[in-house]
Amino acid sequence: MGRYTGDRVDNGRRRLLATAAIGGAGLLTARDALAQAAGPLVPQTMLEQGQPILSPPYGVPSKFEDDVVRRPTDLTSTDLSSWSFTPLQDLHGTITPNGLFYERHHAGVPAIDPDTHKLMVHGLVDNPLVFTMNDLMRMPALSVVHFLECSGNSLTEFTKPASTVQTSHGLLSCVEWTGVRLSTLLDAVGVKPEGKWILAEGADGAAMTRSLPIEKALDDALIAFGQNGEALRPEQGYPVRLMLPGYEGNMSIKWLRRLKVADAPFMTREETSKYTDLMPDGRSRQFTYLMQAKSVITSPAAGGMIEGGPGPVQISGIAWSGAGRIRKVDVSVDGGRSWMNAPLDGEPLPKALVRFRLPWQWDGAPTIIASRATDETGYVQPTREDLISERGTNYVYHYNAIAPWKIGENGEVTNAYASEA
Amino acid sequence: MGRYTGDRVDNGRRRLLATAAIGGAGLLTARDALAQAAGPLVPQTMLEQGQPILSPPYGVPSKFEDDVVRRPTDLTSTDLSSWSFTPLQDLHGTITPNGLFYERHHAGVPAIDPDTHKLMVHGLVDNPLVFTMNDLMRMPALSVVHFLECSGNSLTEFTKPASTVQTSHGLLSCVEWTGVRLSTLLDAVGVKPEGKWILAEGADGAAMTRSLPIEKALDDALIAFGQNGEALRPEQGYPVRLMLPGYEGNMSIKWLRRLKVADAPFMTREETSKYTDLMPDGRSRQFTYLMQAKSVITSPAAGGMIEGGPGPVQISGIAWSGAGRIRKVDVSVDGGRSWMNAPLDGEPLPKALVRFRLPWQWDGAPTIIASRATDETGYVQPTREDLISERGTNYVYHYNAIAPWKIGENGEVTNAYASEA
Repeated sequence: MGRYTGDRVDNGRRRLLATAAIGGAGLLTARDALAQAAGPLVPQTMLEQGQPILSPPYGVPSKFEDDVVRRPTDLTSTDLSSWSFTPLQDLHGTITPNGLFYERHHAGVPAIDPDTHKLMVHGLVDNPLVFTMNDLMRMPALSVVHFLECSGNSLTEFTKPASTVQTSHGLLSCVEWTGVRLSTLLDAVGVKPEGKWILAEGADGAAMTRSLPIEKALDDALIAFGQNGEALRPEQGYPVRLMLPGYEGNMSIKWLRRLKVADAPFMTREETSKYTDLMPDGRSRQFTYLMQAKSVITSPAAGGMIEGGPGPVQISGIAWSGAGRIRKVDVSVDGGRSWMNAPLDGEPLPKALVRFRLPWQWDGAPTIIASRATDETGYVQPTREDLISERGTNYVYHYNAIAPWKIGENGEVTNAYASEA
Repeated sequence: MGRYTGDRVDNGRRRLLATAAIGGAGLLTARDALAQAAGPLVPQTMLEQGQPILSPPYGVPSKFEDDVVRRPTDLTSTDLSSWSFTPLQDLHGTITPNGLFYERHHAGVPAIDPDTHKLMVHGLVDNPLVFTMNDLMRMPALSVVHFLECSGNSLTEFTKPASTVQTSHGLLSCVEWTGVRLSTLLDAVGVKPEGKWILAEGADGAAMTRSLPIEKALDDALIAFGQNGEALRPEQGYPVRLMLPGYEGNMSIKWLRRLKVADAPFMTREETSKYTDLMPDGRSRQFTYLMQAKSVITSPAAGGMIEGGPGPVQISGIAWSGAGRIRKVDVSVDGGRSWMNAPLDGEPLPKALVRFRLPWQWDGAPTIIASRATDETGYVQPTREDLISERGTNYVYHYNAIAPWKIGENGEVTNAYASEA
């Protein structure tokens, strides 16, 4: 790639074109400093003092980033049982900042005092116990990165495709969780041999309750109190929640107050009237926990623009699988006719977001770009056509099809399915 | 460990004691639910609706966490050229939330409009260029987790040991950075063969400038614009900074506006009158970039308490090395007479924090606990005695000695060196 050879300016430019063509750099829009005389002028910020430290003690984003916020759905008639979306189009990595973690509440966010909160573990156990937060903090814990995705993420895409990647895919976040393994608590109480299911109950006004199988409880389930290092945020379950890696978000019961062991699932409201999957034949699938492999391009993405016209563009997005690690991500820039392998940032972690990136030379012509994830089980993210032909359009949850974005001549990016709505 | 056997309550308690003794669980302070009749009462939060979504659109911590904030040094006479500390004692993982990232500014925090900010790369290059933020955003990028530590972190420990882990070790944070490799920009401009050093200049009122060797620039140096997914925070260099993994923090120039290639270091203020290391013989070490292996116990830690008296306690802390990966962390609970290997959360990443944890049975007697890191180069974190015997006490920067915490009979935790002050 001709690094550090003493090319003259013209040769350097030809080298840049070549480099861009093979995806090594994206500099065609950078201005030549020589053409700008002395380069950038000394900015005003160098001529004055800035803000002091601790402005404020708990820091906030720049005022120039005030459109990087969660946004609400327009599908609910209340803001108490509702949801808000993470602005995926503005995020660059795999970690979601806590302030932008998506929300899904069923009766609003309770304000819980950690000094009085308790977690009871009872039912088919030898030694039922009640834990304070201090009890949990003294137990062996661990920190681990996992995504959390609402079962209803992308539900619009079945029938009324959304206009932005934030509203089509933003019920998805990924943080470093800290907590105690649920298996450690179950060891402590001693589950009886007939104990096969566990009810998890939240301390919110909805009394959110779900049943989880003992196998998941003994595998990687966490009793989580930390999120990106600090305490859980109120809207993510402060002071303590269940966290079931790879499972649909509603099962990771927030504001967790009770775990009851039984010999059968509890058939709560959330697993009978809701969070079941209605098939074309009128029957429903129940206990469909797993969030299967999925990916989406977040830049350039529906609702956005390629700023600055044709030239090198970095295509970047995220991929994840509830079944384990992502094995690979392919990207198409020609509407799915051909696919290229997109490099990943670092080694994929199990049940966590991984970021893929593909340098691309956009020639200015309209086209369609899309990504397709394959996980370590060999499962390949389906097309929308295949997904709907199997499940129909009464299905609400677990939409994980390939998301094609249309790029217009002016650089505008739209959901390729949006015109079908 | 007797999982899921049908012990009676009394046997279960004996098993708990045994489990705790081998570090498997920490439940001696958990109350027996049977002794509490029906367990916790239904809390008020279940009898009412909570807060709606988007309260606010960019989320904030619980009101019960309002003491988890950055705190200032008392060693500076201005809050413009000053620093504030990350509350390590309150953090559970390896990621630092952006709002708690430590601060070190030399003339306050500038407010920079990303739409007008430019980065010039010039000097001994073939094709000097000026990049806008949009230029950078279109280039191949990557996301990677690295710690950042101020060269002056723990400087108090040379002579006047601090009373809390926040003020002794809190000039340390760790995030997922996103940016373009500096080598990609250097490829674009074409460094001349005689180009061996690079000046980096910030757009703040201090015009912070440091020289970095070309080898580091071509290795893992980043032109970073993202921090835990979102844009850099103003106090971490918004909209763009240099990020030199493993090097002392001041070299990762914030609010980056200029990179100039030359054949020798620039001998700026920050590498002559400041950020040099004064040895006992009156000579100074210069260009001492590397932050060597270090670790500290963050819970229980100086300034804190073991709440709830004797019993199982999880000892937990962080370790890091500017030279690469942490190989192992040892923990002593007897003032350094004996050491135990402490398990790490997951595979250590290079030049990133890793968390270690060790379940421990505190018998209520006063003792001293400490951690000792070894990195992949074989370097072992020194004792304070060894460090000072080599460097003396005129040295200000790069203090990385073992930090012993004294635990009192009442559970109070103090800096074991504090009484020497």
